[in-house]
Amino acid sequence: MEYRIEKDTMGEVQVPANKYWGAQTERSRNNFKIGPVASMPIEIIKGFAYLKKAAAYANYDLGILSVEKRDAIAQVCEEILEGKLDDQFPLVIWQTGSGTQSNMNVNEVIANRAQVLAGLKIGEGEPILKPNDDANKSQSSNDTFPTAMHIAAYKTVIENTIPGVKKLSDTLHSKALEFKNVVKIGRTHLMDATPLTLGQEISGYAAQLDYGIKALKNTLLHLSEVALGGTAVGTGLNTPEGYDVKVAEYIAKFTGYPFVTAPNKFEALASHDAIVESHGALKQLAVSLNKISNDIRMLASGPRSGIGEIHIPENEPGSSIMPGKVNPTQCEALTMVCAQVIGNDVAISIGGMQGHYELNVFKPLMAANFLHSAHLLGDACLSFEKHCASGIEPNYKRIQELVNNSLMLVTALNTKIGYYKSAEIAQTAHKNGTTLKEEAVRLGYVSAEDFDAWVKPEEMVGRLK
Amino acid sequence: MEYRIEKDTMGEVQVPANKYWGAQTERSRNNFKIGPVASMPIEIIKGFAYLKKAAAYANYDLGILSVEKRDAIAQVCEEILEGKLDDQFPLVIWQTGSGTQSNMNVNEVIANRAQVLAGLKIGEGEPILKPNDDANKSQSSNDTFPTAMHIAAYKTVIENTIPGVKKLSDTLHSKALEFKNVVKIGRTHLMDATPLTLGQEISGYAAQLDYGIKALKNTLLHLSEVALGGTAVGTGLNTPEGYDVKVAEYIAKFTGYPFVTAPNKFEALASHDAIVESHGALKQLAVSLNKISNDIRMLASGPRSGIGEIHIPENEPGSSIMPGKVNPTQCEALTMVCAQVIGNDVAISIGGMQGHYELNVFKPLMAANFLHSAHLLGDACLSFEKHCASGIEPNYKRIQELVNNSLMLVTALNTKIGYYKSAEIAQTAHKNGTTLKEEAVRLGYVSAEDFDAWVKPEEMVGRLK
Amino acid sequence: MEYRIEKDTMGEVQVPANKYWGAQTERSRNNFKIGPVASMPIEIIKGFAYLKKAAAYANYDLGILSVEKRDAIAQVCEEILEGKLDDQFPLVIWQTGSGTQSNMNVNEVIANRAQVLAGLKIGEGEPILKPNDDANKSQSSNDTFPTAMHIAAYKTVIENTIPGVKKLSDTLHSKALEFKNVVKIGRTHLMDATPLTLGQEISGYAAQLDYGIKALKNTLLHLSEVALGGTAVGTGLNTPEGYDVKVAEYIAKFTGYPFVTAPNKFEALASHDAIVESHGALKQLAVSLNKISNDIRMLASGPRSGIGEIHIPENEPGSSIMPGKVNPTQCEALTMVCAQVIGNDVAISIGGMQGHYELNVFKPLMAANFLHSAHLLGDACLSFEKHCASGIEPNYKRIQELVNNSLMLVTALNTKIGYYKSAEIAQTAHKNGTTLKEEAVRLGYVSAEDFDAWVKPEEMVGRLK
Amino acid sequence: MEYRIEKDTMGEVQVPANKYWGAQTERSRNNFKIGPVASMPIEIIKGFAYLKKAAAYANYDLGILSVEKRDAIAQVCEEILEGKLDDQFPLVIWQTGSGTQSNMNVNEVIANRAQVLAGLKIGEGEPILKPNDDANKSQSSNDTFPTAMHIAAYKTVIENTIPGVKKLSDTLHSKALEFKNVVKIGRTHLMDATPLTLGQEISGYAAQLDYGIKALKNTLLHLSEVALGGTAVGTGLNTPEGYDVKVAEYIAKFTGYPFVTAPNKFEALASHDAIVESHGALKQLAVSLNKISNDIRMLASGPRSGIGEIHIPENEPGSSIMPGKVNPTQCEALTMVCAQVIGNDVAISIGGMQGHYELNVFKPLMAANFLHSAHLLGDACLSFEKHCASGIEPNYKRIQELVNNSLMLVTALNTKIGYYKSAEIAQTAHKNGTTLKEEAVRLGYVSAEDFDAWVKPEEMVGRLK
Repeated sequence: MEYRIEKDTMGEVQVPANKYWGAQTERSRNNFKIGPVASMPIEIIKGFAYLKKAAAYANYDLGILSVEKRDAIAQVCEEILEGKLDDQFPLVIWQTGSGTQSNMNVNEVIANRAQVLAGLKIGEGEPILKPNDDANKSQSSNDTFPTAMHIAAYKTVIENTIPGVKKLSDTLHSKALEFKNVVKIGRTHLMDATPLTLGQEISGYAAQLDYGIKALKNTLLHLSEVALGGTAVGTGLNTPEGYDVKVAEYIAKFTGYPFVTAPNKFEALASHDAIVESHGALKQLAVSLNKISNDIRMLASGPRSGIGEIHIPENEPGSSIMPGKVNPTQCEALTMVCAQVIGNDVAISIGGMQGHYELNVFKPLMAANFLHSAHLLGDACLSFEKHCASGIEPNYKRIQELVNNSLMLVTALNTKIGYYKSAEIAQTAHKNGTTLKEEAVRLGYVSAEDFDAWVKPEEMVGRLK
Repeated sequence: MEYRIEKDTMGEVQVPANKYWGAQTERSRNNFKIGPVASMPIEIIKGFAYLKKAAAYANYDLGILSVEKRDAIAQVCEEILEGKLDDQFPLVIWQTGSGTQSNMNVNEVIANRAQVLAGLKIGEGEPILKPNDDANKSQSSNDTFPTAMHIAAYKTVIENTIPGVKKLSDTLHSKALEFKNVVKIGRTHLMDATPLTLGQEISGYAAQLDYGIKALKNTLLHLSEVALGGTAVGTGLNTPEGYDVKVAEYIAKFTGYPFVTAPNKFEALASHDAIVESHGALKQLAVSLNKISNDIRMLASGPRSGIGEIHIPENEPGSSIMPGKVNPTQCEALTMVCAQVIGNDVAISIGGMQGHYELNVFKPLMAANFLHSAHLLGDACLSFEKHCASGIEPNYKRIQELVNNSLMLVTALNTKIGYYKSAEIAQTAHKNGTTLKEEAVRLGYVSAEDFDAWVKPEEMVGRLK
Repeated sequence: MEYRIEKDTMGEVQVPANKYWGAQTERSRNNFKIGPVASMPIEIIKGFAYLKKAAAYANYDLGILSVEKRDAIAQVCEEILEGKLDDQFPLVIWQTGSGTQSNMNVNEVIANRAQVLAGLKIGEGEPILKPNDDANKSQSSNDTFPTAMHIAAYKTVIENTIPGVKKLSDTLHSKALEFKNVVKIGRTHLMDATPLTLGQEISGYAAQLDYGIKALKNTLLHLSEVALGGTAVGTGLNTPEGYDVKVAEYIAKFTGYPFVTAPNKFEALASHDAIVESHGALKQLAVSLNKISNDIRMLASGPRSGIGEIHIPENEPGSSIMPGKVNPTQCEALTMVCAQVIGNDVAISIGGMQGHYELNVFKPLMAANFLHSAHLLGDACLSFEKHCASGIEPNYKRIQELVNNSLMLVTALNTKIGYYKSAEIAQTAHKNGTTLKEEAVRLGYVSAEDFDAWVKPEEMVGRLK
Repeated sequence: MEYRIEKDTMGEVQVPANKYWGAQTERSRNNFKIGPVASMPIEIIKGFAYLKKAAAYANYDLGILSVEKRDAIAQVCEEILEGKLDDQFPLVIWQTGSGTQSNMNVNEVIANRAQVLAGLKIGEGEPILKPNDDANKSQSSNDTFPTAMHIAAYKTVIENTIPGVKKLSDTLHSKALEFKNVVKIGRTHLMDATPLTLGQEISGYAAQLDYGIKALKNTLLHLSEVALGGTAVGTGLNTPEGYDVKVAEYIAKFTGYPFVTAPNKFEALASHDAIVESHGALKQLAVSLNKISNDIRMLASGPRSGIGEIHIPENEPGSSIMPGKVNPTQCEALTMVCAQVIGNDVAISIGGMQGHYELNVFKPLMAANFLHSAHLLGDACLSFEKHCASGIEPNYKRIQELVNNSLMLVTALNTKIGYYKSAEIAQTAHKNGTTLKEEAVRLGYVSAEDFDAWVKPEEMVGRLK
């Protein structure tokens, strides 16, 4: 491989000749061989592109950057956002905890790419842009990385997570409506209980997701606050007057989302509670989704020796050894995602709790886990919706059979003959393997006519919709 | 010990003669010898007292309970709320996951205590109240226990957690104001950085807590929804028309908090996402508090070989072997609480994710962990505020000494001579153990006059307040 | 309440006149009002009693404590071990992270109780024993508290956890044997699969527990190492030559367990990886037990609309509203315990990871969570064994019915006619609601005779025992 | 893109013409668009390669596979192990929880690649090998995937994790030896305490890692047991007599590691406690490493306003805004890894606890998290060793200055004049800002000569090495 020489304040470094990055990126590449290369999420890099461009505009507006430099910076940022420079960001999550090296990676790529776009060679003459003095002007890693985190997290939540969950919620709502009259046995403690409709059951799932989306949206306000303007320790050193407000406005403009400057920059650098807060809502969704998908696979279990009250789509052969087997694979993928998100939540909490003084140095960890969860949940909900939930159908025959057999229909008699006599009827029928009606009449507690009038599954589900 | 015979639908049971509880409580006592006795939180029992009274009133209003029975139930509930019957609730957390046994414990105590209040012996004649048919009228464990959870959780958050955190936040805000002009060195990556004021540093802590309180308040709406009226599986079987709305109104009236009936009872029984959501905010507070208390103990470390920039109150001798030692014990108690809360959050997530069909059967676990966290955080914040935060004082001499020595003051020169030359000055001073000024002048980059004019710690902290 | 005046190096404190504790205990009581009083586990106090007595003996043997003082200390320690002084330890978990205050609580109780046992009043004349100079001789909180943790943890694991798990494992092993010929349908992905015996299924549960016990025993070696002799920072300052080995021998002698002195005292004070390690094994058991108890409740679900392949004991009425309902309550208690243990594991990890320099100051948190888990697991296994596992019985009729119906018996044909044709048979039977045999013959792939000869559930379970 | 038609038991599927995979892989690709493509760890694929080859050999030895088929299978497996077919495995972690689709991916690639190696076109004539009947002979996903998990986990632990941790431990041991006479102040509760040597301090870190390695090795026995031979539900259906033992022998032979057949196949399919157990040890290492790296960065903090007792290598410019700043970046990368591993542990616990009946369907999740942790820990330890630990040097001047100033040297007087008088000396010196000696003499408790004779830091560290 061919190399060129790049320099930073520590001296010279050999850098691959065909890459735009510079000395500091290369040092990081060499010093942090931990896990797969280029693991720093591309969303973070794009978050940087938004904010670097915004900073250039704000710096220009405030009179400390030339229009040429502004436009040079903006042009490279556009290329980054278009994905043209994806192979220029080789660094890993497991680097410095401030993400300084990824910030410098972006600064170096901006400077060197601008040089080339200007028709010059890298290192030739007075540089068009300097990484620290221009690309990083009025910035520090300590305020840019958190800003990139918030941009990436906000966008992913809005563009990926919420649409995925919403799509699934919508489908569950329509299934709830579709099956609102399908009376089936209820189960509590996994044991037979009083009836409800399949629509009611599914409405509970939809409600869970709606609460989850609401909880997630509650966190967006905190996430919309950006640290930029705080620079090194939150004081805004080396920024011009009004810069923090202005740069946030540009970020809002360029991203299309309502970002604002964080009212307290010390909090915004030293803690990442906004990430903790927002991921807490992702974790809540994981908790809900695990319940929902677990229920669905239990309801669909069988085909002959399970619960079998619903059919779900048969998407793939399920077994390499058992011919004809079909499995609830979407439920499995989704519950695995849920387990991952709950684990990620712990990683994020541990990262969040350990900041020191003016800076939390678990930034890349927190960002990576957040984006991992936000993407997985969005993707998995879409997949589950498309390949499973949208195809849920009742097994009417089975549902009918089970509800009619249920001993818990006896509950309807509580208000007529009291809990104790009702219990006696149920226990006797259970012992004898008979029906409730037989025993109710035999015990002399209820006449056959009354029984038929009082114990109607379809009337036991009606109080609440 | 003397016993009397109590009966339930399974038969007879010996119960201690001097206790009000009945057969089902006694069965649970015998069948669940797990951990310390009576571990079911008393707040849950009191939550039951509120809701049983509310149910009696709603049942009366709706014409299905006599005024005598209503008042008999209400009277015992009042006694429970006054703490007069605390020794009547011997059951443990680790019982049935629906909390049915604690619900029956309350029902049995209400029935038997009412008997005694009526001047009768337990078991004598036709009972004043029946546990299932009267005390539990229009109810199921499946809707009462979640309702008791929400009442207990809501009250504890409002009455204990938020006041504790708020008190600490207030103190931190006034300390931030008090020390707003105390310029000190900043630290990022634990390393010397540019200056800020002690007030700014502390303002970040206060901001963290304010965000935490806000996040916690965001969850109260979900927590204010009560399941009561859903009965066994969420359909409201065996409840009169309008009962769910009315009973929630009575709960609101009796507790003084804005409880409403849950719009979807299926969600409210089968999941406890409101608890997951609200505890997520408690966990966020734990994350924040760990950061804050860890910072404070590092800043106070010493007295001679640590950071030593602040003094905190000396409350106890710190060592059984090292005479004269004083330790940041409040920080330690608080960080231990934070670790517990983060662990509890995982327990709650695991409980929340595993509901089956119409019922989540991790209710007592979730309730106990929630209340544990909510109390610990409230108590620990009060303790920390009183015995530590309120006594924080700057060690002015030390602060002055450290800030003046700092090589990172060189950052002020970036905008004058650029990042590279500034770095050279700092590196040379570091290598030679000299001052920035000496090296700036020696290297010929800045005149002595300019240096004095440009590098002023007190002017490096001023952009953002 | 009456008070007396006690003094420590910080001055005077009012202490309840009828208590043995002194100034430092009282300060802690007042300064740490966090959670319920006296929450410091009594096992830790008893661990202190063992080690204080051992230290007194070692100090005497090494010539630095008189025989009178040795015996005075030992006598009070015996009283503590007998539980006679349980009300003398009012402190909470959430105190100083070194547990210094509980160490001093023990020292103060030893000194004052010895005074009284000598027929003197507290504070009268020259004290029989001094808390720091005698009761704490050759000790520091920093080595005593970890030692008390290890004693308490080791004893609880050996005396409570392992016997509980072992009892359950034994029962599962005998059930496995008892049901070794009960051929039933297998289920994978919750879907019908090839058959196995009920005994085989249960043997898997028993194997899980055996692995768990083995993993737990693997950790006992680390747990058997005690920090005592390290004193303040691990150097053993203020201990006589040979003390560390000797005091460990006395602890081994007094407890009856093979405690030895930790080879590296710096590790033993600054980290609590032995607790992390051992609780890791408790967590593994929780993972196993959750799987086992969840399976059992699913297998027992019904009575009419579930899986219903096994019966478990009916211990209590299961519902306050549904008459005659019985629930798998022991499974619920056990799975709640499992969730708690997994949460506790996170709390312990967070405590363990955050030591600073020579001392981990999350000791009480780690100890309390460990003991909580170790007790809960032991208790819950005993309860589950007694009230559930020991009563498992097959529902032969149901088992027979389900296995005979299963489409997955077709797997036996793979080796005869290949996977593809077998799949066709199963899929056709599934679609038509017919039997495998009908379709196998109709499709012309297998003769009726061959089918009967080849597809025998009881011969499909036999390769592995 | 060009396609060919592949078939499975569900029908036809279009597959990219230039890929070896078949219908089932393609279905999975289309049905599980969750997260980045090809996320299934390559180590799992290679684990499959080992076991497929071993199965072919065992099947041949037991007379149910021709030598030609055996060799054809083995040849493709070799290519997989050599990394030649890495682009043939496009599936994701988030697929069916049994990993069936990845098993079929391997089976299909083996069959189609063998076809091509035989000089035929895919789909041409009677296939050389059939995916299910040959490549998967005597196998099920349910026993192959767990076997691949154990092979991958075992190899990664042995080849990556342990060498990385061991390398770091070795370096810490030599640093401990190197600095065994460097007397420095100790710190407990972050506060000044009695002295120890830098070597002693570091020896505690080394001891932590040694315990961690030992704990990890303790888990290898369980991990060395492979499920292969259990097939669909653990009964070994469709395997020849003796197959399970023989196939494990071949796996041992081909991998070079002591794999054996699992004694209980039901446990080995339905639970993954071996993974839980082994990852528990990885988590313990994460706990230890977090403590160690946190300590090192605190000890190295400064350069002028921190603790500053050690120097660590300066590897990169530390700040994009603060010139000349250098940060403990390796400590940051390592602590981030630790947070991740602790989070992964929760994901694994949640996966492990939720198996149903005969199969745990969280296999890919558990495998991916395990391998993630095992690699990160190994890599991060190597990185930390090379770029940080190996370069630790004492700052002798600073160390000397701090230890001599310490008030906690007073502890040496305890055995001479008692704890109380010693405390008075320390407290007075603290208040007056004087030295211990001055106050000791002034208070008349110790003569100047005695003080010099008794209070010698270098003699306070000597009892324990």
